[in-house]
Amino acid sequence: MISPPSSGVYAEARRRLDAQAKPNGALGRLEDLAAWVAACQTTCPPRPLDRVRAVIFAGDHGVSHDGVSAYPREVTPAMVRAFVAGIAGANCLARQHDVALRILDLGVDDDLEDLPAEVSAYHLGPSEPIDKADALTAADCRQAFRAGAVIAEDEIAAGADLLIIGDMGIGNTTPAAALVAATFGLRAEEVVGRGTGVDDDRLRHKSEVIATALDRMGERTADPFQRLAGLGSADIAAGVGFLCTAARRRVPVLLDGVVSIAEACVAEDLEPGVVAWCAAGHRSTEPAQQLALEKLGLTPILDLGLRLGEGTGALTALPVLRSGVLVLRELALLADLSPAAGAAPPPIRS
Amino acid sequence: MISPPSSGVYAEARRRLDAQAKPNGALGRLEDLAAWVAACQTTCPPRPLDRVRAVIFAGDHGVSHDGVSAYPREVTPAMVRAFVAGIAGANCLARQHDVALRILDLGVDDDLEDLPAEVSAYHLGPSEPIDKADALTAADCRQAFRAGAVIAEDEIAAGADLLIIGDMGIGNTTPAAALVAATFGLRAEEVVGRGTGVDDDRLRHKSEVIATALDRMGERTADPFQRLAGLGSADIAAGVGFLCTAARRRVPVLLDGVVSIAEACVAEDLEPGVVAWCAAGHRSTEPAQQLALEKLGLTPILDLGLRLGEGTGALTALPVLRSGVLVLRELALLADLSPAAGAAPPPIRS
Repeated sequence: MISPPSSGVYAEARRRLDAQAKPNGALGRLEDLAAWVAACQTTCPPRPLDRVRAVIFAGDHGVSHDGVSAYPREVTPAMVRAFVAGIAGANCLARQHDVALRILDLGVDDDLEDLPAEVSAYHLGPSEPIDKADALTAADCRQAFRAGAVIAEDEIAAGADLLIIGDMGIGNTTPAAALVAATFGLRAEEVVGRGTGVDDDRLRHKSEVIATALDRMGERTADPFQRLAGLGSADIAAGVGFLCTAARRRVPVLLDGVVSIAEACVAEDLEPGVVAWCAAGHRSTEPAQQLALEKLGLTPILDLGLRLGEGTGALTALPVLRSGVLVLRELALLADLSPAAGAAPPPIRS
Repeated sequence: MISPPSSGVYAEARRRLDAQAKPNGALGRLEDLAAWVAACQTTCPPRPLDRVRAVIFAGDHGVSHDGVSAYPREVTPAMVRAFVAGIAGANCLARQHDVALRILDLGVDDDLEDLPAEVSAYHLGPSEPIDKADALTAADCRQAFRAGAVIAEDEIAAGADLLIIGDMGIGNTTPAAALVAATFGLRAEEVVGRGTGVDDDRLRHKSEVIATALDRMGERTADPFQRLAGLGSADIAAGVGFLCTAARRRVPVLLDGVVSIAEACVAEDLEPGVVAWCAAGHRSTEPAQQLALEKLGLTPILDLGLRLGEGTGALTALPVLRSGVLVLRELALLADLSPAAGAAPPPIRS
């Protein structure tokens, strides 16, 4: 059991918010978010979220040979190159919001030899097609999990007030949806979504792949580690390790779309208490993401119909989180205003 | 009729977004917002929204003598002083998001002689209680509208890529709700909200005040100028003038809560086409705001339960709008990625 953010500091933050020059609760969710950050930092007012670091876990998926995506498998390494070149969506948003962005290849089906060696330092290889075989061996799953833990430690050592987790991998919404279904006992038809935009035929096929994978796993899904090895991938297992370590180290994480929320589902079962250290950046268009948000009790910051992945939803939500923290830090206390402002309102006249 | 943002540039922006290294539409509302900004600027890609200017129109309201608010009337001048001192919520958010913030007293019931003279340069005085008399004389309403127009011209001359409109005034959600009801033929009970947080008794009384005001006005609400003079206030009339001028000068505006949306309702009737130049920063907790958003066809960027006013919802939404613009400007084109990324996905295998 991972210990939660400080309830004492949460209450202190609430008291400060209520003493500020605004009606109680008038800043709505900004206040909830700000109090959560303070509780994570065990400090009120909290430090501003100046040092934010995002990691994109990239990998290929066995199912992408099989028509579950609107895009060919070759897009995964092409996008990894785009991240390294700084020209993808996540790069633009990370630059805009002053976030350090790191891309890591855990299982891309390409040697990526043209890229700096650190990109593939934790490379394990693509997953097996989950409808036919376990995605990873237990050993590889453990190794990927450990890699994610090391990566989180690195980011924390570099000085992170907040971590953001993103994903890249053609086909990755299929294992993510399968993991959500397996975690909560949902059916394939409930969790399947269009990912980057599959048509009806591919959507039906994707649902069948998920259903077959769930059948194949059977009772083994009850164990979170077996669920991860059976239905996940190296990049997803690394994400799970990353989340567990961030929570153990008491560093809050902003989740992105369906892949990161699937990782949070598994992480919470592996190490209960992880999700208390996570905020949801946005509501994506994937049914599995929406269902998992609800099951995990997370209210997303944004709801803008995003479905790009890469951490883009979390990056777009970041300034809202920062706005909450800033208000908690800087908004005047009522006591600082002129005394008349604290008087009672006039009675109702009829 | 005010001419709309360029449909040609909107289409050009859509084409560019579809040619970028992401699935079509994968950035959801960010894409809609970015294309709208491009259309407003008649330039694709659009300039970044570096120069954003916010104006808070402050005023007192006759109804605030009468128990419609949870706060005493004295809060209005106290908050104006807080804005000038730079310690209110809007100041914090404006600083964070690099927005020039100007506070203008149109009708505050206080001489504010301790403040710089420019704050009250357009002062006209508080409104009459709208359930008993017209809020403003026609002459004062016209004068306030003109003041708003001049203020918008000033802000545009100072170099504004985007304007933000905010409000401060104890009791101001009562006239705002009345204006929304009068614009769309809604009943007082449908539009009335808790404002800064009134209890059930005050809510009932507030609803009666709105109903009485609507009855008193009768058919005169059909004329937008009479509606504004009868149910508005100097600060609201100035906001209407501000919006009309911004739209006529083709400068987009980010709206805030119920007061600014009420201003947009009147502005659209006075000069059809104004709302095409407006985006909605957020969905507030006020029923009148939500109803007006729907009637005007505006989809809010944020939905965070904010109800502070001051422009805080629009200021919090600004970085999301900027993120959209940035993506449209900077995200790589698919053609820039490796050729394999453009290939077709594999067929479905069964």
